[in-house]
Amino acid sequence: MKSISIKTGSQFDTINITAQIQNLVGDSGIAEGLVHIFVPHTTAAVTINEGADPSVVKDIMKELGKIVPLRDDYLHMEGNSAAHIKSTLVGASEVVMIENGSLVLGTWQAIFFCEFDGPRNRKVFAKIFEG
Amino acid sequence: MKSISIKTGSQFDTINITAQIQNLVGDSGIAEGLVHIFVPHTTAAVTINEGADPSVVKDIMKELGKIVPLRDDYLHMEGNSAAHIKSTLVGASEVVMIENGSLVLGTWQAIFFCEFDGPRNRKVFAKIFEG
Amino acid sequence: MKSISIKTGSQFDTINITAQIQNLVGDSGIAEGLVHIFVPHTTAAVTINEGADPSVVKDIMKELGKIVPLRDDYLHMEGNSAAHIKSTLVGASEVVMIENGSLVLGTWQAIFFCEFDGPRNRKVFAKIFEG
Repeated sequence: MKSISIKTGSQFDTINITAQIQNLVGDSGIAEGLVHIFVPHTTAAVTINEGADPSVVKDIMKELGKIVPLRDDYLHMEGNSAAHIKSTLVGASEVVMIENGSLVLGTWQAIFFCEFDGPRNRKVFAKIFEG
Repeated sequence: MKSISIKTGSQFDTINITAQIQNLVGDSGIAEGLVHIFVPHTTAAVTINEGADPSVVKDIMKELGKIVPLRDDYLHMEGNSAAHIKSTLVGASEVVMIENGSLVLGTWQAIFFCEFDGPRNRKVFAKIFEG
Repeated sequence: MKSISIKTGSQFDTINITAQIQNLVGDSGIAEGLVHIFVPHTTAAVTINEGADPSVVKDIMKELGKIVPLRDDYLHMEGNSAAHIKSTLVGASEVVMIENGSLVLGTWQAIFFCEFDGPRNRKVFAKIFEG
């Protein structure tokens, strides 16, 4: 299992981690298989979406903020229930195939860490399976 | 493939299944790998979120009820379309890494079965891969 | 890695791909393992939900359209931000177990490709792991 360290810059943030995951795959020397990417936090998530136009992930984060309001008579007293709910909607993990030593992603796809309760120091775990 | 039986207690319910999944991992004797957790139902789901404060999963279920209203001119005649929609939003499966015979979860993370159309008798399937 | 080609018929569409995935599993000759299903697009997704009554996936698509409005002052200039957001909410991949050469799905479950920005020619990738 490998680990990536991330420092998010604000309450809501998205960080393109595609190159870092690709580097882990390259370092492993595994040509064919899959990589499991896992966020060990409950107020963050990982998603795969467009990496070319940075407006896309901004729109995703902004709309998530409308779907899940920051304040809504939540029971959890820490004030970050919206972040927990977004984490469940987007999800804590992704699985990506590896072919010829490279991540199999569509032309426009990139892997994004999503911060919903930053800024914080965060981790992303990755495990590579041959097959 | 292993199977866990769950009895949900009400229409909306969350059940922490972390210990049961960890027991399956322990029984397998597999030290390094991953476990695939799968819900074979279309009105339930599985998510990973905070296990320490039970208010968090209550907030998640309550807010999902606001995002997806129980009644909304749905076509499906059984009256449980909202439950199907929540199942797709939260997702039917999770993948968790195994290191030294233990699930790799963040400090606050637990694995929850989410019931959206109970009470019912439910199953959760788990399959463990070495690697 | 195997690939399925799909032609979606309208802006919003769902296509049951269970039989095609099962065929790939059958062709592989692998009796026990898992299949990773991956959508290499950023305005589409894959989900597992009820396959018996076609009203269920219609309700899912219609309600997603209410949760994520088509127009909402999005920054992304291509006019398909709603499709990108739905892709992140539903997710780009699924993992399904294989037992005795067959997909392990619940009685009512089917695997659906979800089109949020069609009609288009689309691909679904599948990779089968023995174990």
